[in-house]
Parts: sequence; C-alpha cells; structure tokens
Amino acid sequence: MARIVLAKNQDRRLRSGHLWVFSNEIASIDGNPEPGGEVVVEDFRGGTVGTGLYNPHSLIAVRLFTRRARPIDDALLRERLAQAKAFRERILPVETTYRLVYSEGDFLPGLIVDRYGDYLGVQSLTMGIERRIDSILDALMELESPAGICCRRDSPVRSLEGLPLLEPLERGTVPERVDAPYEGYVLEVDLRGGQKTGEFLDMRENRKRVAQEARGRRVLDLYCYTGLFALHCTAAGAAEVVAVDRSGPALERARHNLKRNAPTRNVTFVEEEAESVLARLGAEGSQFDMIVLDPPSLVKTRKTFREGAAKYEALNASAMRLLAPGGILATATCSHHVDAPVFLDLLRAAAKRAGASFRVVEVRGQSRDHPVLLAARETAYLTLALLERIH
Amino acid sequence: MARIVLAKNQDRRLRSGHLWVFSNEIASIDGNPEPGGEVVVEDFRGGTVGTGLYNPHSLIAVRLFTRRARPIDDALLRERLAQAKAFRERILPVETTYRLVYSEGDFLPGLIVDRYGDYLGVQSLTMGIERRIDSILDALMELESPAGICCRRDSPVRSLEGLPLLEPLERGTVPERVDAPYEGYVLEVDLRGGQKTGEFLDMRENRKRVAQEARGRRVLDLYCYTGLFALHCTAAGAAEVVAVDRSGPALERARHNLKRNAPTRNVTFVEEEAESVLARLGAEGSQFDMIVLDPPSLVKTRKTFREGAAKYEALNASAMRLLAPGGILATATCSHHVDAPVFLDLLRAAAKRAGASFRVVEVRGQSRDHPVLLAARETAYLTLALLERIH
Repeated sequence: MARIVLAKNQDRRLRSGHLWVFSNEIASIDGNPEPGGEVVVEDFRGGTVGTGLYNPHSLIAVRLFTRRARPIDDALLRERLAQAKAFRERILPVETTYRLVYSEGDFLPGLIVDRYGDYLGVQSLTMGIERRIDSILDALMELESPAGICCRRDSPVRSLEGLPLLEPLERGTVPERVDAPYEGYVLEVDLRGGQKTGEFLDMRENRKRVAQEARGRRVLDLYCYTGLFALHCTAAGAAEVVAVDRSGPALERARHNLKRNAPTRNVTFVEEEAESVLARLGAEGSQFDMIVLDPPSLVKTRKTFREGAAKYEALNASAMRLLAPGGILATATCSHHVDAPVFLDLLRAAAKRAGASFRVVEVRGQSRDHPVLLAARETAYLTLALLERIH
Repeated sequence: MARIVLAKNQDRRLRSGHLWVFSNEIASIDGNPEPGGEVVVEDFRGGTVGTGLYNPHSLIAVRLFTRRARPIDDALLRERLAQAKAFRERILPVETTYRLVYSEGDFLPGLIVDRYGDYLGVQSLTMGIERRIDSILDALMELESPAGICCRRDSPVRSLEGLPLLEPLERGTVPERVDAPYEGYVLEVDLRGGQKTGEFLDMRENRKRVAQEARGRRVLDLYCYTGLFALHCTAAGAAEVVAVDRSGPALERARHNLKRNAPTRNVTFVEEEAESVLARLGAEGSQFDMIVLDPPSLVKTRKTFREGAAKYEALNASAMRLLAPGGILATATCSHHVDAPVFLDLLRAAAKRAGASFRVVEVRGQSRDHPVLLAARETAYLTLALLERIH
C-alpha cells in the first residue's frame, strides 16, 4: 500500500482523533497512490497514524477510515455500516426513517446514507467513496434489504473533490415519491429531486422541542421546505401557521405532508423569498408569537464568512422585529463555520438592531443520528437557538 | 438622583442590553452617590442609559435595574419580583421548588431567591441589594406568603462588593431542615447550612436527561452533594450507583433523600475526595458504564483560568479512563469563564490524554428557571456535556 509521511508534528490533530490530513501537512508520498486509493499515513518517525483514502485534487488529501494499518476493503466497509446500523437501532429503536450513515461521524468519510422506511437515499461526496460506491450499494442492499436505493451524485461539494455532478445510481425500484414513516407521521419524500437525499432529518428532536412551545401561538415558519416544522407546530396546537418557501415543488410536498398527517386547516403556505416576506410583513406591522427561521447554510466556506454572517444578522433582525413580546424565535444555522457562540454573537447584534431584548431559552444541536465526534468539531454543524422576547 | 456619565462609546454594551458599568468606563460622577445608592447612568452626550445601583468598592460600579430614568424603589422591586414569579408559574406550573429570582437574569442584579416549597432561601450578593434587603424580604413575605425565609449573607462573592460575611437574616420560622417537593420527590434542604441557598436547582432538566441514559448502567457519581443525580439514576433503573462526596453532612442528606424517595438498595455512598477516588479506582482497574462529574466551579476568576482549566482537564481525563466503551460521561462546569466551546476544548485534550474516543451526545445549559439574557453572556454559567465513549 502507498504511504503518506506527515511533516513533523502534523500528526497531532490526527492522534487526538481527527480524520483529515490536509495536503500541506504531507512531507512525502511513497508509492504512487491513485485518486481515491488507499494510503497508510505515518508520522515523520514512521509510526502508523492510520489508513485512509487519498485524493490529490482535494485540500483534504486523506480521510482516515481506521487508526490501524489495515486495508479499506469490503470487510472494513461492512463493519462500519454494521456499527452505524447498530447505533441507530439503539438510539432510535422504533423509527425507520433516520440518518443511517453520517460520513466522518460514523468513520465513513464521504458517505451519507439516509433511511426512509423501505428506501435508502445515499450521497457519494468524495473520490474515495465514489470509487467504491458500487460495492457500498451492494453491501447496503444486503445489510438493509431496502426496496430501493437512490444514490445522489449531484452535491456541489463534489467539485472540491474534483468529482463531476452525475445522475443518480439506483438499486432495486425507486418510485417518484416514497412514503417514509417519521415520528408517527408518514412523509412523502422525493429521493431523486428533493434537496440532499430528499428530506432534512437533522432537526428531528428540534422540531419536537419547538412544537412544545407552539400551543396557542401564531407561528411564522420561514424556509419551511416540506413543512415539517409547520406540521409539528399545528399538530401541537398552534393557533395559526404561515409557512413560507420560495420553492413551489417543496410547498407542494409540504401541502401533501400536512393533508396526510394533520387534520388542521390553520396552515397557510406562501411561495415567496423569506427576505421579501419579512420586508412585507414588517411594512404591514404584522406580529407573530413564534417564528421559525431555518435558512440554508449562508456560510459555506470560511472565505464567505463575513458576507454570510451579515445575512444571518439581517434575517434575524427582521424576524425579531415581527416578534411580539413573549414570542419565541427558533433560529438555526447549519454551517459548521458558524458555531454556537459565533451564532449567539450574531443574534446579539441582530437584537440590538431590532431594539429587542431576549432570554436564551435553549441552544441545541443536530439530531443524535448525525453523530458528532468530540475530536472533529466539523462534524457538529447545526445550531438551533430558542430565544424568548422579553420586550 | 446622582448621575454617572460614561466615557465616549462606553454605553455600547449597555445599549445592547447588558446591565454592568465597569468602574473604568465612567467619565464623571455628578452628585455624591453613596455605596448601594441609586444613580442615573448617562452616555457622554447626556442621553439616559438607565438607572442602577452604585458601588464604589466594586469593579462593577453600577448594575442597571431599568433602562429608564426611574427610582429603584419598592414599586420597581415588587414589579420585578412579580415578573419573576409569573415567569416561573408559566414555565414550571406544577413545581413548587425552583429558582424564583436569578439576579441579572431577572433584572434584579445581586438578588438570588430559591423557593423550596413553603420556604424561601435568599442570597444577598451586592451592596445595592444589601441596603434594601429588609424591604425585599418584606415584599417576598407578601408576594409568596412563605412559612419562612432564610437570607444567607455568607457568599464569598460579597467580598468583591466590600460586604462582610454575616449571619443569615430570617423571617417567619425556619426549621433545621425543610421538606422541598421537587420533580415528584421530597428533598430535605438545610437552608442555613447547605451550600448556596441549600440545594442546586440549576441541574433540574440535566438530572432528568442524564437519568434517561442510566438504565442498566453502573454509575459513578462524583461530587454527588445531596445525591440528586444518584437519586434520579437509581430511580431510572441504574444497575448500581457509587456516589462520592467529601462532605459528611452532604452525604447524610443524600442518604436521607434516597431513603425517602427511592426504594432501591443499589446506591453506595463514599466520603472521599473525587481525585482520590479516581486515583484509587483507576489503580484497581475499575470500570463504569456512566460517570457523572459535577465539580464546584474550578475557575472562579479570569486570573485563575489556566490553573482551573488544568484541573478540569485532569479530572475529566481520570474519569474517562474509568469509562467502559459505550459508557456515558456526563461532565459539567459551572464557571461562566469556561463556556461550552472552551469546555469542549478541555474535554478534547482530556480525551487525548486518556487515549479515548467520544461522540458528543448533547451539550446542555442550566435550567430554565435560571434565565440567560442574550445580551449578558455571564448569565449563562453552566454547561453539561454528555459524551459517549466509542473506544
């Protein structure tokens, strides 16, 4: 197997449990590893750091799969998949819709697998995974016996790996829409055309927590996508929900999810940009008792931090102005570049702009089926702050 | 009323909602405010920033009670107490033991009031509160009609305010021990001699959350104090609990709390320093499936940060070594100098020392009856990290 020798002291982060070797940390490469090929990583004294998959086209040159010198073969991949499955069966013994494999969080860097009842939605995100995707899909068919798998290869992050955007790979039968049992509801998921693998499962506990505050409140749900916050809030007794998204197809699925799962008639869907809704409602002097603000990542790279941070601040300030005293703002960021304290700083600035005062009710992270490694802080990417307006 | 005029730009933090004026931010003092007396705070242009109580002996020269120019009289104090009470009645409608007033978090800087069923435990922590404590206790007798109040004046933080440590002030009748209904249990609380006001109420939700993981596990509970983590864990079906504290009187109350509330026989109490227990159990090669580590604040001032941080790291590394793979570490800090990301950094370092790998299951804060102000990050002082050992 080819060997990657690290420069002096560049093994420290890895020895602490991190999984990434950056290209500028490499002293020498012994052998001729091909893109996506296995490499043993060694410190400058020749001590084994682990085995990973190599990509000369990526800033993250190696992603470790194991701390030993061990081939990354079918046996290792199947072992990791079985461990990931056992973990979900333990933490979510009743549910059948969850993230089954979360990339680095499950020591399978570059692979995402979401289970939606009888179907699997997969994302292949790195060169190393892409080269092995066929045997991974075979292993998933054996391990999970799904009715079908849709493996998406259209994520923009693939470009960082030098991977083209491709049509999905499929196994079994993948219908236009699949029914996914989820927390007592049945969701309609579009595995081929929905965002990411079709649905966002990282807000599971957060949706339930937000709904606990929704009873009797007028709720504005911004970036509602397929309506899961709206569904949880109306089912929990919200007085009214106005759910906003700019995507017609997403709203169509949201309407369907609502119709199928909640017999309420107090949810209104608005097809419009969140910013424009906020401006319009602000001009009208509208007020809400609860606002859910769950935008897509606005800081995708460290380079765009300032610009994205300014957007978070502006969006939150606009939302805060619409919130009645006593109202709850449930506001999220899904960028790992904006961690909880940075996000709270942005919210402080937004509150000042809005002239509003808030209690911090709770600061929460992503669902437990998206495991966070203590040693790799990038595995924690989602923060949800629950704020209560004092005056 | 005397006036405090701030230096240029020194009103910014206050305009964002913070409540503290540091002595070095003051440009001039108009009038002759006495220690603990009311002052109007103005920016350098003469605009009103708010009204607060002044203490020339403290680094925090003024603590604001209101954003208006308004006397800090009985009417204002009673309004704040009533707001604090209404907030608890809303968030904890069934409970009768909770923090009723949390200082800055309730816009009553320097005043702590814990309700224990029919009794109140109070702490007077600042010159401003100390000067008004009689009328505050009168107001509390009227508002809450408790059987008795014990107002403690023995907190070491009083020295930062130039206040002596004094015997408690009492109202009504304060028995040796009071019975406090708490989350379905009845606790025995020592209002005069217990730590702070007698009990730690800031871990309410955290105790319940930790207990959710305790079923079937062998639990080591370090710094157990009056045994509330141990009680919750045994009641939730822990296989065994070893609860450690160096204080004999605390363990006596822990035994009593357990006997009265849980019919289990699988809790062992050990009167010993946590460090020494960890060393002993480590030498014996003992292993636990869950460890609760809830030490007192080890970083009381910014100056002692390095020393205290090293202690957190060492304690956590020792605990991690005793944890079996799959085991849960519930580890806390109650220092506002150690916020969540700093604490996670210390835990990363500890994990490296222990040669252990962890998932971050959840990072939690203090109970909601200790409200955190977005604008005053010092009001958030408690972090509990739930870590799961991978290997």
